[in-house]
Amino acid sequence: MIDTPLSPGSTIGIFGDGQLGRMLAIAATQLGFKVHIFSPQHGSPAFDVAAFHTTAPYSDLDAVKAFASEVDVATVEFENIPLDTYEHAGKFTCIAPDTKALATSQDRLAEKRFLSSHDIPVAPFVEIDSEADIATAVQKLGPAGLLKTRKMGYDGKGQIRLKADAQGAGANSPGVNLEEAIKAYSGAPSIFEALVNFELEISCVAARDWAGNIVFYDSPRNEHRHQILAESHVPANISEDLEKLARTYTAKIAEKLNYVGVLTVEFFVPPTGGEVPLIVNEIAPRVHNSGHWTMDACSFDQFENHIRAIAGWTLGNTQRHSNAKMINLIGSDMEGWAEFAGSSSANLHLYGKGEARAGRKMGHVTYLSGKN
Amino acid sequence: MIDTPLSPGSTIGIFGDGQLGRMLAIAATQLGFKVHIFSPQHGSPAFDVAAFHTTAPYSDLDAVKAFASEVDVATVEFENIPLDTYEHAGKFTCIAPDTKALATSQDRLAEKRFLSSHDIPVAPFVEIDSEADIATAVQKLGPAGLLKTRKMGYDGKGQIRLKADAQGAGANSPGVNLEEAIKAYSGAPSIFEALVNFELEISCVAARDWAGNIVFYDSPRNEHRHQILAESHVPANISEDLEKLARTYTAKIAEKLNYVGVLTVEFFVPPTGGEVPLIVNEIAPRVHNSGHWTMDACSFDQFENHIRAIAGWTLGNTQRHSNAKMINLIGSDMEGWAEFAGSSSANLHLYGKGEARAGRKMGHVTYLSGKN
Repeated sequence: MIDTPLSPGSTIGIFGDGQLGRMLAIAATQLGFKVHIFSPQHGSPAFDVAAFHTTAPYSDLDAVKAFASEVDVATVEFENIPLDTYEHAGKFTCIAPDTKALATSQDRLAEKRFLSSHDIPVAPFVEIDSEADIATAVQKLGPAGLLKTRKMGYDGKGQIRLKADAQGAGANSPGVNLEEAIKAYSGAPSIFEALVNFELEISCVAARDWAGNIVFYDSPRNEHRHQILAESHVPANISEDLEKLARTYTAKIAEKLNYVGVLTVEFFVPPTGGEVPLIVNEIAPRVHNSGHWTMDACSFDQFENHIRAIAGWTLGNTQRHSNAKMINLIGSDMEGWAEFAGSSSANLHLYGKGEARAGRKMGHVTYLSGKN
Repeated sequence: MIDTPLSPGSTIGIFGDGQLGRMLAIAATQLGFKVHIFSPQHGSPAFDVAAFHTTAPYSDLDAVKAFASEVDVATVEFENIPLDTYEHAGKFTCIAPDTKALATSQDRLAEKRFLSSHDIPVAPFVEIDSEADIATAVQKLGPAGLLKTRKMGYDGKGQIRLKADAQGAGANSPGVNLEEAIKAYSGAPSIFEALVNFELEISCVAARDWAGNIVFYDSPRNEHRHQILAESHVPANISEDLEKLARTYTAKIAEKLNYVGVLTVEFFVPPTGGEVPLIVNEIAPRVHNSGHWTMDACSFDQFENHIRAIAGWTLGNTQRHSNAKMINLIGSDMEGWAEFAGSSSANLHLYGKGEARAGRKMGHVTYLSGKN
């Protein structure tokens, strides 16, 4: 752990070269730190704004050792770094968050079991290791659900949706039936998760320091399209009780994971009067797309607070000065860049990526308005 | 000129590698531009956050040509770039601001004459080309004044202060007497400028686009120590009339210089009832230290608006959401970094410079409070 704040001029190591690494690198640089990016490819988003780079496969443990030996603390911009790599880095430098957080969120089954063991509500789920398990799961939880690979899933990747009427009726609902799901099943360790009935989705973005102090941003209301985050709105217009409960769950998760840095928990909010007021959808052990609005609406954004946390600095004030609406620019959305260039109120953030492929996050834009 | 907005992925060229270049580079990158820094030395502040670098003397016109040919627009982070260099770049790419703005502000005499010719008040001044001129100037304007080299002066460099009582009485006032001034005079083309009696100093930071649209930030009140900016406060608590007059003068200066980008004008505010309500101290044809508070108190800061202006984008809203106090961290001030690391309300910006030499600007910190 870091018990003395890192001095300016210290080096922050970041595994990953995407937009989250880029925004972390900018935040770290503005605090006077040097940034060293480790990535298998020379990724433009983060490499453009970092003083040092290492381009090597995550399996190159010599390169990992050299990298870790040169940085004062190392962190990640994504949760799917091989655990061996991260643990190896931890032998030569301080790492944050803890390996346990990555191990938990890398495996949907481990994550669900972790949450359940701490009495935090999750969607009903069944472990799937064979085709037969799928049929059993549908019998147990009903047909409406998602078959998800345990590992390497994000933005809807590795998911098969089963429709509510797998046995026959309602051909218009989205998803496939049981037979098709079994056919599409890759054989990879998976879970079957019952579809949750929810009114809205929110997320809680928190930052926790080495001493266990934790701060929270106001929870945004999130809208997804094609299983990718499309918009975040703050305030979410949820009750104070619900906001409080989201923070209580997030704090508990952070504590149980010995978490240091920014942690995001995505929640479903079921209709009022349901069994539970909040269900955890997913834990992201990192800065998160649904926290991008903090760059424009808060004095200390999620990226700065992640860096402050891991560097042993005091966490910055998370209050927002404005309401915010954040819109992701995905794939061909980039064709509309001139609208933002021509606006005096669109806070545009582009990630410097080359090709605007379908589903690729190219940037985001935030609109602010008077706080309520 | 740029009449079609530059598309994301275009390259912004910046002459200069200091903190202003660094903050411009970050702003440009966040808008999706690539940044190419040209500088005689490999300066860490800007180089750390730019995709491309050229390290070559300003006199290397081949390097300037190669640089200019690769960028879509070129700008400066400081006004003292050799005009030959800048004009040469202008043969191969679009440059902003106009060479005229740099030529004017590089030469104190040219600047004063330019302002006077447009009926904008300046301190009384006399051209100095010899020792004899100094004595004549003192006879004409009185002894209290500043002997300033016409070129390459900033942060009080190249200045000799003559005290009010050069002829004898008042030994405690700062400055030297006429005899000492003549002795210290380097022989360089200079001006003698009468000391202005002022109650406060303000500055007007404006951004102007290719079409002549201009926007203004609220004028900060500035405090200098040892002739270097120490603090800026917003609001300055000046009258609306005074704010309006500062903007009128700034707009006139920008228009007469065909200005594109961020322009800063520093003003003295004489005591009420004086001959004129505002006197221009200096023009800075660039983003300015007294505009750093805009990074934390505005949605669109001076750096982003400079980039938007030169790239042909619509200027961003200059409204501030908070009051701000900006404090420069100069030289040994850096020893106090732990205070800021330990604060949840200090918006710290460090420039990544190595040695904290006396008088060297190492960073700044902004404190926000509720807007009034």
